[in-house]
Amino acid sequence: MALDHVRALVFDVFGTVVDWRSGVIREAGPFLERHGRKGAAPSAFADAWRRLYEPSMENIRSGRRPFLPLDLLHRENLETILPDFGVDRALVPEAELSDLNHVWHRLDPWPDVIDGLTRLKRRHIIAPLSNGNIRLMIDMAKRAGLPWDAILGAEVARAYKPSPEVYRRTAGVLAMDPGDICLVAAHNGDLAAARAEGFKTAFVARRTEHGPEQTTDLEPSGDWDLVAEDFRALAGRLGG
Amino acid sequence: MALDHVRALVFDVFGTVVDWRSGVIREAGPFLERHGRKGAAPSAFADAWRRLYEPSMENIRSGRRPFLPLDLLHRENLETILPDFGVDRALVPEAELSDLNHVWHRLDPWPDVIDGLTRLKRRHIIAPLSNGNIRLMIDMAKRAGLPWDAILGAEVARAYKPSPEVYRRTAGVLAMDPGDICLVAAHNGDLAAARAEGFKTAFVARRTEHGPEQTTDLEPSGDWDLVAEDFRALAGRLGG
Repeated sequence: MALDHVRALVFDVFGTVVDWRSGVIREAGPFLERHGRKGAAPSAFADAWRRLYEPSMENIRSGRRPFLPLDLLHRENLETILPDFGVDRALVPEAELSDLNHVWHRLDPWPDVIDGLTRLKRRHIIAPLSNGNIRLMIDMAKRAGLPWDAILGAEVARAYKPSPEVYRRTAGVLAMDPGDICLVAAHNGDLAAARAEGFKTAFVARRTEHGPEQTTDLEPSGDWDLVAEDFRALAGRLGG
Repeated sequence: MALDHVRALVFDVFGTVVDWRSGVIREAGPFLERHGRKGAAPSAFADAWRRLYEPSMENIRSGRRPFLPLDLLHRENLETILPDFGVDRALVPEAELSDLNHVWHRLDPWPDVIDGLTRLKRRHIIAPLSNGNIRLMIDMAKRAGLPWDAILGAEVARAYKPSPEVYRRTAGVLAMDPGDICLVAAHNGDLAAARAEGFKTAFVARRTEHGPEQTTDLEPSGDWDLVAEDFRALAGRLGG
């Protein structure tokens, strides 16, 4: 099979490994209530925050800003959306804002993830290839029990996906040909970018990443090297 | 105690975590025999190879060469010493030379390491802060079962210890004050460099790292924040 030579599996994380939307909703609800915004929808808050994710990284990909870790972009984006939800930044204690910003460190994995990764780790190097920074990925892994062999991704590569440098530098530190590495992602766009750099590709659908009304990435849109229902099925297919 | 605020423990690896000399001797012996050098001492081979370690990194620290991963420096140093041991480089198949160079990926930890790290991991982020490159550290950890939370070190920082940049960039990716991080090392010099950058320091003696005749680093030579007999004792002292 096309994946026989693969020795490292690298994973998109937000959406593919963890359910970011439910995690943000869980903490945004009490935050909004504390600030007198009981009527505001925590799901809208989560979606608004996440909507600024791509544009904030694009400022760095394009060279308009130097590389900055995602925690810092998340913080800027959080401060940007607060007024839209009727929260006065000046009235939120710094410690509380900082704590809410770290909700991205406290996201839960999808139910199949720990078992799947544990099995996949037996025969492969497994690592996140996320835009999340190193400390974010460490905290998330320790809290959730994600058994990564290493933390790779944007901060190691000093570039954000889907910039080609991310894939090239990741293959560099793994000392592997790109074709010996497989990206696992729930996003067709992520897989297309990885394939363009020679990585193998595995699609795992996460049909509620964006909530019950999700319309994107419900199915594979490319002829990816592997399509699996979840991480357990992925481990079954890869002999883990 | 001085270490109450420490949230991350970072470790020197060659010598402190693994017994590099015994590991290299174990594979150098058969290599020398295969190439008709049964009389050559594998321990002398290990020591000669390791003797070129510091000078090869110094070329990078000084700016004479750009950053290169340790696997590559090890390879150059290996080719340098072969003639001294009567081995003709041209007669060694590339696959065999490459395999011997990767002996550094196959070193065994000291007997207290796995238990100690497993306990320390409960309350702290634990990571190597080694001059070894990422892939080397991953392979070593998978083979030996080292339960790191992340792989940090020279290749993440793009600088070799004891350059100050290594400690500064490590604190940066951990998003911690240097004083919240403790370097664990069997080398007084390593600890002095880390302390100069504000890290906390823990000394664990490895009195046979350089063989039975070792004369250096037998005792702590500074007033380090903690001195422990081994990693189990370290875990005991840090409440792990």
